[in-house]
Amino acid sequence: MEDQTGYSVHRKILDEGSVDEMAEKSESKTLLSEKVRKSVRCSGPRLKECLLRSVPLLSWLPRYPIRENALGDMISGISVGIMQLPQGMAYALLASVPPVFGLYSSFYPVLIYFIFGTSKHISIGTFAVISVMIGGVTERLAPDSDFMIWDNVTNSSNVDIISRDAERVRVATAVTFLAGIFQILLGLVKFGFVVTYLSEPLVRGYTTGAAIHVIVSQLKYTFGISPVRYSGPLSLIYTVLEMCYLIPETNIGTLVVSIVTIISLILTKELNAYLSKKIPVPIPVELLAVIIGTVVSWQVNLGEKYGVDVVGIIPSGFQPPVFPEVSLFGQVIGDAFALSVVGYGIAISLGRIFALKYGYKVDSNQELIALGLSNSFGGIFQCFAISCSMSRSMVQESTGGKTQVAGALSAIVILFIVLWIGALFEDLPKAVLAAIIYVNLHGMMKQFLDIPVLWKKNKVDAAIWVATFILTVLLNPDIGLAASIGFSMLTVIFRTQLPTYSLLGQIPGTDIYRPLEDYNQVTQVPGILVFRSSATLYFANAEMYQDAVGKKSGIDIAKILSAKKKQEAKRERIEKENAKKAKKKGVNMEPEQKDIAFVELEAEPEPSHPRAIILDLSPVNFLDTVGVKALQNIQRDYGQIGIEVVLAGCQTGVVDNLQTGGFFSDKVTNSCLFATIHDAVLYCQSARAQEEGAAMTQF
Amino acid sequence: MEDQTGYSVHRKILDEGSVDEMAEKSESKTLLSEKVRKSVRCSGPRLKECLLRSVPLLSWLPRYPIRENALGDMISGISVGIMQLPQGMAYALLASVPPVFGLYSSFYPVLIYFIFGTSKHISIGTFAVISVMIGGVTERLAPDSDFMIWDNVTNSSNVDIISRDAERVRVATAVTFLAGIFQILLGLVKFGFVVTYLSEPLVRGYTTGAAIHVIVSQLKYTFGISPVRYSGPLSLIYTVLEMCYLIPETNIGTLVVSIVTIISLILTKELNAYLSKKIPVPIPVELLAVIIGTVVSWQVNLGEKYGVDVVGIIPSGFQPPVFPEVSLFGQVIGDAFALSVVGYGIAISLGRIFALKYGYKVDSNQELIALGLSNSFGGIFQCFAISCSMSRSMVQESTGGKTQVAGALSAIVILFIVLWIGALFEDLPKAVLAAIIYVNLHGMMKQFLDIPVLWKKNKVDAAIWVATFILTVLLNPDIGLAASIGFSMLTVIFRTQLPTYSLLGQIPGTDIYRPLEDYNQVTQVPGILVFRSSATLYFANAEMYQDAVGKKSGIDIAKILSAKKKQEAKRERIEKENAKKAKKKGVNMEPEQKDIAFVELEAEPEPSHPRAIILDLSPVNFLDTVGVKALQNIQRDYGQIGIEVVLAGCQTGVVDNLQTGGFFSDKVTNSCLFATIHDAVLYCQSARAQEEGAAMTQF
Repeated sequence: MEDQTGYSVHRKILDEGSVDEMAEKSESKTLLSEKVRKSVRCSGPRLKECLLRSVPLLSWLPRYPIRENALGDMISGISVGIMQLPQGMAYALLASVPPVFGLYSSFYPVLIYFIFGTSKHISIGTFAVISVMIGGVTERLAPDSDFMIWDNVTNSSNVDIISRDAERVRVATAVTFLAGIFQILLGLVKFGFVVTYLSEPLVRGYTTGAAIHVIVSQLKYTFGISPVRYSGPLSLIYTVLEMCYLIPETNIGTLVVSIVTIISLILTKELNAYLSKKIPVPIPVELLAVIIGTVVSWQVNLGEKYGVDVVGIIPSGFQPPVFPEVSLFGQVIGDAFALSVVGYGIAISLGRIFALKYGYKVDSNQELIALGLSNSFGGIFQCFAISCSMSRSMVQESTGGKTQVAGALSAIVILFIVLWIGALFEDLPKAVLAAIIYVNLHGMMKQFLDIPVLWKKNKVDAAIWVATFILTVLLNPDIGLAASIGFSMLTVIFRTQLPTYSLLGQIPGTDIYRPLEDYNQVTQVPGILVFRSSATLYFANAEMYQDAVGKKSGIDIAKILSAKKKQEAKRERIEKENAKKAKKKGVNMEPEQKDIAFVELEAEPEPSHPRAIILDLSPVNFLDTVGVKALQNIQRDYGQIGIEVVLAGCQTGVVDNLQTGGFFSDKVTNSCLFATIHDAVLYCQSARAQEEGAAMTQF
Repeated sequence: MEDQTGYSVHRKILDEGSVDEMAEKSESKTLLSEKVRKSVRCSGPRLKECLLRSVPLLSWLPRYPIRENALGDMISGISVGIMQLPQGMAYALLASVPPVFGLYSSFYPVLIYFIFGTSKHISIGTFAVISVMIGGVTERLAPDSDFMIWDNVTNSSNVDIISRDAERVRVATAVTFLAGIFQILLGLVKFGFVVTYLSEPLVRGYTTGAAIHVIVSQLKYTFGISPVRYSGPLSLIYTVLEMCYLIPETNIGTLVVSIVTIISLILTKELNAYLSKKIPVPIPVELLAVIIGTVVSWQVNLGEKYGVDVVGIIPSGFQPPVFPEVSLFGQVIGDAFALSVVGYGIAISLGRIFALKYGYKVDSNQELIALGLSNSFGGIFQCFAISCSMSRSMVQESTGGKTQVAGALSAIVILFIVLWIGALFEDLPKAVLAAIIYVNLHGMMKQFLDIPVLWKKNKVDAAIWVATFILTVLLNPDIGLAASIGFSMLTVIFRTQLPTYSLLGQIPGTDIYRPLEDYNQVTQVPGILVFRSSATLYFANAEMYQDAVGKKSGIDIAKILSAKKKQEAKRERIEKENAKKAKKKGVNMEPEQKDIAFVELEAEPEPSHPRAIILDLSPVNFLDTVGVKALQNIQRDYGQIGIEVVLAGCQTGVVDNLQTGGFFSDKVTNSCLFATIHDAVLYCQSARAQEEGAAMTQF
């Protein structure tokens, strides 16, 4: 800063009363009823605006610049559609439903979002975290053990896969439908802001934790083993232990397929990254894996010869809509709520990143409604819950996708696959799909690198990341999410509960006050203590605030008051005795004289004590009754030993809180509130000077 | 304020860098390891101090002023002891154990607290809320239905009362012991501060809600009916419904006893209040009720003639100590934790009231340990959990009790009763004990009057009261407490999440800035926006903060940026075409010229836009990474359209957060932080003047 114009102010000392007078505090506040009336007023243009906001398609499609966007959207749509095929099938495995339902989930919801969504770049469809959460529900409510049938030929019991899968689809569609309804309701009551609780460290820790669940749930396909399903807290640990126990039963054919697929996928992805600048569209790595996997499996007959688990029957065409089973709703209501929040949280955070990048706006409440409609319609058309996938969205954007038209085109690709060529993939080994999932998760695994970065930036945020990760891994994604949100809220409480208390001193020659411990050239104003807490003042720290004032000022108020009480009692006793004696002698003491003695005692200050304490309340955001009481106590207690307590730097809201909280009385008016610390200091100094002056003239 | 000394300051404009330089920011911070070392250092006097702190008796008893305190303590001790008898028996009914265990609970824990406690005036012993919580546990784990035996004589099934009660005592002692252990542990890790979560509105709402539970659980004794016991959430509602259903089966004898006792108790209490100034010791109302009730019952033979439920066998003397059953611990761990927190919360809040009144100090951690020892020893000696009772403490204080010696004396009174005269009360109707409980609860019922008072003072605190009450009534005292604490923490989040965003204007002629909407005579500085949020900035409101800056400034940053991007793209295209054309013509454009055109575009400001935005961060208590990112985004976005963003009024901790959060870079240094808003305004004005001056000279 080169300019030295300087800071120069002359004015009178301002307390709250003078400020109100000078600046004419306005009384009129907008009434709640008025606000409500304003927000529900109805009119023609308003109705049109409302319609356009509810169906964003109507506002942007008519103005779609075909010449500029069509080509990009087409290439991007086809690329994404090709990705949807393997991902949809793979994520269906995560959700523990037959792979074809993953394809349905990549079709209907995408179309609905095309109509109602406001983000132009995110790729709606199946998503690993959501799918694994659904898998948790389906396997809990339709476990293998419920579908055992006795096979007379082999004399052993087998799982009736067809009826089990049918039941699982019923569960998945029910929870999906319900999650959609939750999202619509949350959107209608404008609860889009709930996403703000999903802070970035929390979301990243959560998705990493969920990725661990995804990996563990796919290990069985990689090794070709069938562990018992565990549910509830710590189920991940039990599953891993079971897995270790079953490792000797690994199917070698499946393992070979897995290893080959994983290695080829990684290599091709590296190649893609290397070539990214030279070719316009990335190599459809996953599609290639699926095609090659299917062809090899079909030629070598992996399924029957080597006992490799394959995808199995894929029906052609779509299934008729079925309304979800209402009787299941009671059992899945918690999961549905968790799904609705997580699904929305993922979609909106990704949507916002793109919106920021391309300078448009996503409407958080409309997004909730769009996702809710996608899920609830999807639930009726046999889909499982969707959100948006990071990897597909990246491809959609990087291949030139400009609007949701790309999404709609990807749905058409899926339509084509489902109607005509889906059945070709019946021989595809499930291990290939598991490999696709692993490789897609490497982005989430990279998030472990957040920890050192966050630790350097902000220890509390690093703690939120780690706690969320651990809670999600141990308690599963549903309860883990609730626990993590609880934890991140607790950090706010802790942060305000462990504030720094400091005495402030003046920077010589200025009106600026800074903590004494932070600066060397800061001097305490003689006889005046300026006290500040770094946090707001409310029930969780009100008592500590009082203690800290005592500690920092070095005044043991309880001791002094009790000593004073004793002294008073003694004085009274002596006076009484004197009075008795006097009575005996027939002479009565003048009552006025006694009063004066008493008043003198009240005002008599210790020479070692400060004359005034200034509480800087500028960091206070609000005061509750406990906070107001704490301030009252401080003012009363120190007042009793002759120390004046004044407040400085209150916000308007805080002044209102003091007002309604009964802080002000006949004795205490808003003239003990000062605009700035320096005002308060000047006031105390001058008041002190006056007093001393008065004392001097008295003697 | 009469003095007009005035506020007069001349200094240079101070940004954070200049402040650091001027005031010599100190770098040395106390290291954590040093702090730890300091706190564990061991030495002779330290050890003695530690011992005195752990066993407060040692420090105050040797200095006990017999002449002054002995008489008061004695009268007070005997009065309290006399109260302990009926209350102990009545609260034992609440805990669903035989009445004599209430007497044990009024003896052992009181003696232990005498040794370890730090409050001089609270009366340790049975307490209604705690007792009803224990009753919930005992009736859940040892319900009547578990102890049915077939009576061959009457051909009906009866409850085996003796073994049921034995089991209930086992449950009660186990939960008591465990609660004590929890309290000791919490005290050892210095968790006394947890009580700060129990804010006054919460405690008052909670005790009122618990009182409703107490009343409902005693109705069966008043009407002489035996409803089925419900447990779990909403059990209160079910119990009341059951009760209404059973009203026709009321035992008339019991009801008459109840009504007579209640009316006489109320009348005598009123008399007591009227006489309180004339007699030194209040009439022992409850003792009289118990004695008269026993005598009448014995003479009229209420028990057998009228079917009135009486207390039954009271064994003389104490029972040998038994270590609680460890196998039960797993089932009562949650209840034990709730008991430990509630018991401590009640004791410490009452203890503090007296400490404040008499000017001494209660040590919250030592209190936890004292209560924990009382409960865990008590659990071994067949007591149920204790806390302190408001009504007894009032009597202890008002009858002249000065120290815990009064408590010890009351225990001796109980000792005398248990050893010799307890058995006399076998004929006492339980309805009398229920009546004593009701009348003791009238103080808690009065707490309903808090609601209008709180509503006037602070709406959020009123909401906490009501929510706590409802949650406690519906979810029972244990889960209700957890839910209420959760709710009161959520209010903190909500309060910081819905802040007031305002533009500040200058009070003419001063350096003070106030919200434009609150004052009429406040003027906006031309070309400079001063923006403030009333709350701290963190993950839950960071996005709203960004939105609010845009809204208040009237700048649709997304729109402008996208327009700018398009314009840039267009310009680039045109330039490319030009370049191509030029190339064709063989003439190449100078690259420097292009750069200049680009730079001009960057810095070109809209005339309608402000030149600078000042964010006042003085209400910010801390910044997390999300908050830092929000500030970065604002600075970057507005910087792109030529608006400078500077910060004002950051606390030291906030500056540190900005530092570690990566806010500062080569471009952004701490010279964009200003000590006060006025400094920032002066800086912006001068910078603007300079720029304009420069622009003028250019043309």
